[in-house]
Amino acid sequence: MKNPGRVFLVGAGPGDPDLLTVKAVRILNQADVVVYDRLVSTEIRKLIPETTRLIPVGKAPNCHPVPQHEINRILIHEALQGHTVARLKGGDPFVFGRGAEEALDLACAGLSVEVVPGISAAQGCSATTGVPLTHRGLASGVRFVTGHSREGRPLELDWDGLADPDTTLVIYMGTTNIKNISAQLIASGLSRRTPVLAINNGTTPSERRLKTDLNSIAENLDREQFSGPVLFIIGRVVNLLGSLNDHRRRTPFVQPSTPQVDIYV
Amino acid sequence: MKNPGRVFLVGAGPGDPDLLTVKAVRILNQADVVVYDRLVSTEIRKLIPETTRLIPVGKAPNCHPVPQHEINRILIHEALQGHTVARLKGGDPFVFGRGAEEALDLACAGLSVEVVPGISAAQGCSATTGVPLTHRGLASGVRFVTGHSREGRPLELDWDGLADPDTTLVIYMGTTNIKNISAQLIASGLSRRTPVLAINNGTTPSERRLKTDLNSIAENLDREQFSGPVLFIIGRVVNLLGSLNDHRRRTPFVQPSTPQVDIYV
Repeated sequence: MKNPGRVFLVGAGPGDPDLLTVKAVRILNQADVVVYDRLVSTEIRKLIPETTRLIPVGKAPNCHPVPQHEINRILIHEALQGHTVARLKGGDPFVFGRGAEEALDLACAGLSVEVVPGISAAQGCSATTGVPLTHRGLASGVRFVTGHSREGRPLELDWDGLADPDTTLVIYMGTTNIKNISAQLIASGLSRRTPVLAINNGTTPSERRLKTDLNSIAENLDREQFSGPVLFIIGRVVNLLGSLNDHRRRTPFVQPSTPQVDIYV
Repeated sequence: MKNPGRVFLVGAGPGDPDLLTVKAVRILNQADVVVYDRLVSTEIRKLIPETTRLIPVGKAPNCHPVPQHEINRILIHEALQGHTVARLKGGDPFVFGRGAEEALDLACAGLSVEVVPGISAAQGCSATTGVPLTHRGLASGVRFVTGHSREGRPLELDWDGLADPDTTLVIYMGTTNIKNISAQLIASGLSRRTPVLAINNGTTPSERRLKTDLNSIAENLDREQFSGPVLFIIGRVVNLLGSLNDHRRRTPFVQPSTPQVDIYV
């Protein structure tokens, strides 16, 4: 019997191939087989050598072409053949990636797993939009939440805890439930005027942005008809949009540590 | 007058040079001058060409050799000389990096700033320890908080909101205040037995780990006498420590989606 191959759970980052880590690129170049998600961009797949076998196991919302247990089975099967397997996942495998479920199944099968972190969508979108996730006087911390609920079930979140004006709230996979999410946050005490930035296809050439507030996000998002993933950044930091990128407009300007800032985008 | 140079705020990641992004490496190779923090590892500095000018502006807790306004002045001065400036910061510049303060000052001076995200310490430590930041049935989200308060001031956090057993809590820069933090979380309703993982020098060859619980973290940390940065991961996911990395121990094993798991590390 062959020695089993190693499995790497690799974060592909938010879409821009430049945001892959050095380690991720090296593993993609050395792997015998790459098992990849729908969220892994075409540009990133182009970095993989042509001789490498590619197995797509893409997931779309409410549509799972390859069930999780089948993905796990593929990974185990390939590793047991002695292949070096790269399991390439959008973002970071340990932030909403279900990476730990795959890793646990692999470990159960006696296989060695190594995790390579990736830039998460929140970080990628923060960098391209110039909206920091934390900022003195505006946000003392940041919170990543999934807005996706399991099939048909209501979204159960700690709304009171989430409605903290001093924390930046980032919602992943929230498009379907954004009306409910914004209503619950307002009902729990966040101001209707809390700024919201929705970023579609963040860090890719097709990145689009919508700046609005909690009160109007659901209605405005309907109008935009974004296709592809949308990330929501909610909180005062959103008011910094435009402050970093457009240096021609000098005033009015934001003073660091000022709780309220003017918007001039 | 020369055309001003570009400034890049570059995330250096958690320490391991392999976790730099491709973009960060390219910018470090092209920059005329690199202005770097104390948290940027020696291994990463070694990647910078010998001909590149290096300016250290390291900050240690309660000891700021170069004040923030002076750092900003250096960046502006260098860029106005026409130099391409890489401002290299530990982790991600927009997660507790004060990156936005620097970027705003640069934008105020009419300079162009580009932000390159980095792997944050939470992600790096999550990958090396095999403790995911989110996991079905254990943590529906993750929250990054700073445990550092401004000089002499008490730590003002939304303790009730933080005491959510369904969210993984990651504390950056919390060593000094960990006794207060753990006491407040317990007082706000988190179980004393909530598992805590303290990671010292995460992702570097000198990484050390301490697994304990909220009740004992302050006392146990005192005993360890860690030097260098410490990150705290608090929540049920910490019980997965050891499950992924040591594949020789097959049972007892964690069932995905099981709220309580056995520890066998």
